[in-house]
Amino acid sequence: MTDQHLKLAALRQDGWQLENIVKRLRAVRCEWLAQHGRSSEPDERELPSSKIMAEVVETLSGALFPMLLGPPDLRQESEDFYVGHTLDEALNSLLQQVCLELGHGLRPSLEIERQARRIVQDFALTLPELHRLLDDDVMAAFRGDPAARSVDEVLLCYPGIRAMIHHRIAHHLFRDGLPLLARITSELAHSATGIDIHPGAQIGRSFFIDHGTGVVIGETAVIGERVRIYQAVTLGAKRFEADEAGQLIKGQPRHPIVEDDVVIYAGATILGRITIGAGSSIGGNVWLTRSVPPGSNVTQANVQNQVGNAG
Amino acid sequence: MTDQHLKLAALRQDGWQLENIVKRLRAVRCEWLAQHGRSSEPDERELPSSKIMAEVVETLSGALFPMLLGPPDLRQESEDFYVGHTLDEALNSLLQQVCLELGHGLRPSLEIERQARRIVQDFALTLPELHRLLDDDVMAAFRGDPAARSVDEVLLCYPGIRAMIHHRIAHHLFRDGLPLLARITSELAHSATGIDIHPGAQIGRSFFIDHGTGVVIGETAVIGERVRIYQAVTLGAKRFEADEAGQLIKGQPRHPIVEDDVVIYAGATILGRITIGAGSSIGGNVWLTRSVPPGSNVTQANVQNQVGNAG
Amino acid sequence: MTDQHLKLAALRQDGWQLENIVKRLRAVRCEWLAQHGRSSEPDERELPSSKIMAEVVETLSGALFPMLLGPPDLRQESEDFYVGHTLDEALNSLLQQVCLELGHGLRPSLEIERQARRIVQDFALTLPELHRLLDDDVMAAFRGDPAARSVDEVLLCYPGIRAMIHHRIAHHLFRDGLPLLARITSELAHSATGIDIHPGAQIGRSFFIDHGTGVVIGETAVIGERVRIYQAVTLGAKRFEADEAGQLIKGQPRHPIVEDDVVIYAGATILGRITIGAGSSIGGNVWLTRSVPPGSNVTQANVQNQVGNAG
Amino acid sequence: MTDQHLKLAALRQDGWQLENIVKRLRAVRCEWLAQHGRSSEPDERELPSSKIMAEVVETLSGALFPMLLGPPDLRQESEDFYVGHTLDEALNSLLQQVCLELGHGLRPSLEIERQARRIVQDFALTLPELHRLLDDDVMAAFRGDPAARSVDEVLLCYPGIRAMIHHRIAHHLFRDGLPLLARITSELAHSATGIDIHPGAQIGRSFFIDHGTGVVIGETAVIGERVRIYQAVTLGAKRFEADEAGQLIKGQPRHPIVEDDVVIYAGATILGRITIGAGSSIGGNVWLTRSVPPGSNVTQANVQNQVGNAG
Amino acid sequence: MTDQHLKLAALRQDGWQLENIVKRLRAVRCEWLAQHGRSSEPDERELPSSKIMAEVVETLSGALFPMLLGPPDLRQESEDFYVGHTLDEALNSLLQQVCLELGHGLRPSLEIERQARRIVQDFALTLPELHRLLDDDVMAAFRGDPAARSVDEVLLCYPGIRAMIHHRIAHHLFRDGLPLLARITSELAHSATGIDIHPGAQIGRSFFIDHGTGVVIGETAVIGERVRIYQAVTLGAKRFEADEAGQLIKGQPRHPIVEDDVVIYAGATILGRITIGAGSSIGGNVWLTRSVPPGSNVTQANVQNQVGNAG
Amino acid sequence: MTDQHLKLAALRQDGWQLENIVKRLRAVRCEWLAQHGRSSEPDERELPSSKIMAEVVETLSGALFPMLLGPPDLRQESEDFYVGHTLDEALNSLLQQVCLELGHGLRPSLEIERQARRIVQDFALTLPELHRLLDDDVMAAFRGDPAARSVDEVLLCYPGIRAMIHHRIAHHLFRDGLPLLARITSELAHSATGIDIHPGAQIGRSFFIDHGTGVVIGETAVIGERVRIYQAVTLGAKRFEADEAGQLIKGQPRHPIVEDDVVIYAGATILGRITIGAGSSIGGNVWLTRSVPPGSNVTQANVQNQVGNAG
Repeated sequence: MTDQHLKLAALRQDGWQLENIVKRLRAVRCEWLAQHGRSSEPDERELPSSKIMAEVVETLSGALFPMLLGPPDLRQESEDFYVGHTLDEALNSLLQQVCLELGHGLRPSLEIERQARRIVQDFALTLPELHRLLDDDVMAAFRGDPAARSVDEVLLCYPGIRAMIHHRIAHHLFRDGLPLLARITSELAHSATGIDIHPGAQIGRSFFIDHGTGVVIGETAVIGERVRIYQAVTLGAKRFEADEAGQLIKGQPRHPIVEDDVVIYAGATILGRITIGAGSSIGGNVWLTRSVPPGSNVTQANVQNQVGNAG
Repeated sequence: MTDQHLKLAALRQDGWQLENIVKRLRAVRCEWLAQHGRSSEPDERELPSSKIMAEVVETLSGALFPMLLGPPDLRQESEDFYVGHTLDEALNSLLQQVCLELGHGLRPSLEIERQARRIVQDFALTLPELHRLLDDDVMAAFRGDPAARSVDEVLLCYPGIRAMIHHRIAHHLFRDGLPLLARITSELAHSATGIDIHPGAQIGRSFFIDHGTGVVIGETAVIGERVRIYQAVTLGAKRFEADEAGQLIKGQPRHPIVEDDVVIYAGATILGRITIGAGSSIGGNVWLTRSVPPGSNVTQANVQNQVGNAG
Repeated sequence: MTDQHLKLAALRQDGWQLENIVKRLRAVRCEWLAQHGRSSEPDERELPSSKIMAEVVETLSGALFPMLLGPPDLRQESEDFYVGHTLDEALNSLLQQVCLELGHGLRPSLEIERQARRIVQDFALTLPELHRLLDDDVMAAFRGDPAARSVDEVLLCYPGIRAMIHHRIAHHLFRDGLPLLARITSELAHSATGIDIHPGAQIGRSFFIDHGTGVVIGETAVIGERVRIYQAVTLGAKRFEADEAGQLIKGQPRHPIVEDDVVIYAGATILGRITIGAGSSIGGNVWLTRSVPPGSNVTQANVQNQVGNAG
Repeated sequence: MTDQHLKLAALRQDGWQLENIVKRLRAVRCEWLAQHGRSSEPDERELPSSKIMAEVVETLSGALFPMLLGPPDLRQESEDFYVGHTLDEALNSLLQQVCLELGHGLRPSLEIERQARRIVQDFALTLPELHRLLDDDVMAAFRGDPAARSVDEVLLCYPGIRAMIHHRIAHHLFRDGLPLLARITSELAHSATGIDIHPGAQIGRSFFIDHGTGVVIGETAVIGERVRIYQAVTLGAKRFEADEAGQLIKGQPRHPIVEDDVVIYAGATILGRITIGAGSSIGGNVWLTRSVPPGSNVTQANVQNQVGNAG
Repeated sequence: MTDQHLKLAALRQDGWQLENIVKRLRAVRCEWLAQHGRSSEPDERELPSSKIMAEVVETLSGALFPMLLGPPDLRQESEDFYVGHTLDEALNSLLQQVCLELGHGLRPSLEIERQARRIVQDFALTLPELHRLLDDDVMAAFRGDPAARSVDEVLLCYPGIRAMIHHRIAHHLFRDGLPLLARITSELAHSATGIDIHPGAQIGRSFFIDHGTGVVIGETAVIGERVRIYQAVTLGAKRFEADEAGQLIKGQPRHPIVEDDVVIYAGATILGRITIGAGSSIGGNVWLTRSVPPGSNVTQANVQNQVGNAG
Repeated sequence: MTDQHLKLAALRQDGWQLENIVKRLRAVRCEWLAQHGRSSEPDERELPSSKIMAEVVETLSGALFPMLLGPPDLRQESEDFYVGHTLDEALNSLLQQVCLELGHGLRPSLEIERQARRIVQDFALTLPELHRLLDDDVMAAFRGDPAARSVDEVLLCYPGIRAMIHHRIAHHLFRDGLPLLARITSELAHSATGIDIHPGAQIGRSFFIDHGTGVVIGETAVIGERVRIYQAVTLGAKRFEADEAGQLIKGQPRHPIVEDDVVIYAGATILGRITIGAGSSIGGNVWLTRSVPPGSNVTQANVQNQVGNAG
């Protein structure tokens, strides 16, 4: 055996020093816990699982739109059986996640299980209405995009619809006191579509996002009915002032109000608790931090002039 | 058993009211069908499956570039066997999806199966040429990005290449009368890369998209050879006028023509049926709605001046 | 049997002409190899696998943060066993990939295996420190986002954290001479989050990216501590000049230096080897190609004035 | 590189001679076809798949006994949904297999599909009765085995029950003209339990096989009600004579008739078209080739004496 | 559309009459429950799952013999991590099954969970001793079979060892008051090996079963140390008398006692509460229902003579 | 919190004492190694994996009989591609297992890899002949069983064929110096069919086993052409004398020679190095330990008379 063989054999024997690394990783975790005032690691998982919520939402999507988002070989005769069976799976799985969020990982007490069951029962009962809301979103997309060939195509392909399925579920969870599950749900859509809607945002019927990549809609945004927005639109907080103030007061309304029938073109940035009046049209790449009255037609030129005046 | 136990037991017994919810969900689906003038739900699935198209495209990618996008343990000796075997799987699977799109979910008649077979046979025969097109795209990326270390790295990692594999397949399907399968294919790339190319867009050889997130290329865009674009570039329709006109006439050329050897930097927005002359360079964040002659070098300053003049 | 039946039967019998297509696809691959000066296809896979690196990174994430990113049913008692066991899997898998990159697909010689083992051993030993770096990033996100409710939520949901787990691993690999594995790793994060950080970028402690879609950070960017950036921010090379020069000299510093405690708002584009002085704030959509001193507060208006002056 | 390295490298380069072997394997297959008078291989699969029948039977078992053989987390509220949904899956899958058997692998003509649908519809409608038959088998096992603690245990654990679920399904298929699917079904049970019941065997209610390994029941056996048998019992054809006759006439009754309330102990071998009279008891290891009247109690000694006399 | 088409279309539309069948299946289940004095189906699963016990036993086998029955790529350095991690999984999974058996499907009360935890803790602590017992069985096989080449081969391949791993686990569960889990465990081995050992059977150290198919060992059998048996051996109850008595008194000792160092050859049938004295050898196919003193050498001839005398 | 809660909480906190158990299990493993004269556990897996051999054999079965044992949706056009591709997978996988057996778990030296490659290459080249052998076995089954309806049914369903596919592979491996892989292969068939053929047994063309459960064929058995046997037949060693001799001399011919055209009926036990002359027929349950001349017709009565004489 050559010298080189021997050296390699020694290296192999060393392995990865797993004992050492595992011990040091535990030390780092304990340090972190100590910094956050916790004396020890929890006994079991404390928080919901992103992977399981992904399954819940996918199963719910299939149960809501069985012939389009359900399994490829579903037949009409067994549709209700499929819906009932998968709904049950999804709701039971959701129940566990709700217990985790409510109980902070403690084994669910009777009280927490009761609370969680009520929330999930309530959620289940609103599914038909949620279906109707999404039907309206689909119709809005079909009407709003000249390239859409059928409502089925919209439901099957449009990232904006995928984002809204997630958002309307996430928003319900958010309002029912489950901000973490809501956030996990909306991040799943964000990852898949590039559309980042905070689950707290209130969005009216018949909402349509085209293309969608880069859209950001903040927690306290309020959007009316029949609103249409394009890729890279931001409905954000006007952070400049906030930054100086140190810490923002949480939950404070700080994102735009967009009234009914507004269209906002690609790349527009709308910041702060301002109001875009009903029926307005906001041009592409516009930077807007002031309210505009109903029926406004804002383009980059307008804005730049305003900015120029202000400068 | 305590009072609290009893309440919880009652809640558990209630379950999710599945019968009720399933019935109401069916009612909502029927409402929707009635609104769209259909008397009943289809007997079987009517539309292609996004999940299956994802498998088709992934399998085709492996068959086209076996040593790079195929299975990790492929050996040269069995390469052709692998290619033939997986190609067959992909084409048979595609045949089913084509039947679904052509037949609108009806059981494929003999006529529809014949038509679908011809389309898939034709598609199969163009795969070698499609491979060559993609080879050119890979070379374009390698030449266009100073950070690229090898052509293999480009094929393995670059989201722009992933988007083009999807697009060149999707465009073929689109031209063969399968707009829905085409759209599903392009949305798969959109979700994975943030690059949204409409399958109708015509794109010449040696096309390179760097970074890519937020790129949008519209249905009637025409792109020449050796064009290079960066993230967040939009080649869109000039919607402002269209909005007033009510409904756009479908299929009308409404997106830019980009001639050979043009470079478009990040964030540039180019709207309407305008022409970017050959060899031009469009700067970052430029907002452009007018044609520019060959060899132009447009930067934000130019544009803002123009806009300023116009204001 | 009708005439139509006969025609269809003939079509079916034709099949896909697999022999023909497989042969032509091989010809195309050989052409390509010839163009790149290689006489024949390699005997076995030459390059690392993206799919396997995805597993490596996911397994490492679980090993680093077992209770949050590990399996849903992990218990504290078996945490270290889980960490040790999965770490071993991840490191062995990484070893194979490192051999592939170092050996360019040749069967690993003794020398290459020795080199690869050393790299992976070294990587393993830095995992605890890498954990600490990520803990600081989590704290930065928690402090930087008024909507964040707990550090656990940040780790579980924030795309910026997911991007940083990938980047801090990718950067380590990049510095250890594995640019391809590093690139694959960062593209995995890019696909999932829309955040595109080149593995070469140097990023200090407590870095926070909010929302993130469309962020691009270039290879030679240098970022200080406690920096915060928002969606669609670009730290890029100033390509305009470079384009004219033909080919950029590789590795040349060409991206911005961002000093400590800088905040860069959404959509800002910062190009070239300029320096953003410590504590500066760069407003949304700002286009910046010149250095600014510490404590600067740059907004769109400032920039437009500057541009106006320059125009 | 040493000499040994070179030799190994050469071996590696040789690979497996796949081209050669594949070609020769095809030649062997063609030879075989020619010997059987077929000019070419079929275009597609001609025969049912054992793997798919295994899924069909497992799914049916779950649909028949959802709380015991269904998924571990099934709840009563969704039981019917589960049953309907999985039944539909199983029946559709079975339909395909029936088409394959009836059509000998040809694409199913309209006639064949019609015939197959009728068979499967008929099968589906007899499932409730089949359930009742199996309930009786379970009760028979519970009563017949002093070690059985509950009917649930019997259904969950007893190989005899597993064999009967398969047999009662297989027998139905056999009588409906599907001997191949029937045989596949019974071989699945044979492999799992060591109990080999020909699907043609007619078995009355409340049948119980204990332990079961090595039991063989022939095609034309007829078994009454409340019969109980133990491991390694054979109800076979009396082959000695048959052997001399050359070829047996197919379908001819050649296996025993076992009347009601008979018990046959382990290892007994009963051969030929003889009748075991009602209420008889056949002792362990008995070798029996003559009919016995009702109420007989045959033990090894009896038999040996008989044999002795005959010797 | 031809007449034939229409008929088929009608058949297709009929579907499977799922509603009808599901309803009738429910009726059959309710009938059954009524017959057994239960007023309604349970709310949730009442009984352990065979599929889950199969995973538990396979995981335990890997944890006991990691380098042989564990994953193919296990390395020595991470062996303990693997053992700890998978043991935890197996024990938690077992805990759930134990709760199911103890609680008869009711949600586990605190008392039942406490009892279950104790049983599983106790089981876990005996694993090292169970390992030693199995080591002795392996040695016995190695010594007893001239064809065995190494102890590793024995552990890897011998069905007798597989049966004993299951039996020693099943016997522990049986003694701890879990007859159903014990029975499920032993049936798993029965299905895989054809060896049917009742979990109640007491088996001493260094036990070896060769070939094994058809072996049956009854509930109250008692087997000494260093016993060796071959395929198709039965240690059963002498049912002849029992049959006349109507119902056997449960748990009554009714199977043989086999003392130390006995060898029983293939096909021997030993029935009733008799004793095979230490060191005896029982020949192939022997039928034995009387005790034999230590050191006996019983062959078929002996037995037949005895029988002859008795006849 | 009640007292009962507290006790349970304490139990939960105790967990499973994993540290303790893992340590003790390691101690037991070390003890075992010490007893066998090995100073430490091996660094990596030393022995082949049963799970992987199962995949190898299943893949080979599909490659040999693609239209019957291959994937359900295989089409004739891609048959050779499928065969080549899966053959390559199977052979590479087999190569690894051969290296493990030859190298006793040491990293394969160049010499061992060379030897392993030669064995696998040789094995690959005999596959066409192996196919022919199996074709003859299929024909023998078809001719030998009046219940067989087609050769396809035989290949698809008959456990005897499944056993012979395994045996003919296992026997090849056995003769090539791989007794462990051979044994693993034959045990896979044993578990699935209850037929236990030692890989060393030499079996001529056109062999047929009907039913099969309980068949045992020993290592040095030699079987001629056109032999037919039934369930529970043993071709074993005459152990009675051997037992007294202490240890058998390994490899010594000790099992029967069965000449051409012999039929052996169910349950016959044939022991020792005796010869069953060509064309003989051995009746059911016969116990035979002496050679019989060609053309013999042995039944239980004959034998018992012989035994009687001897008694």
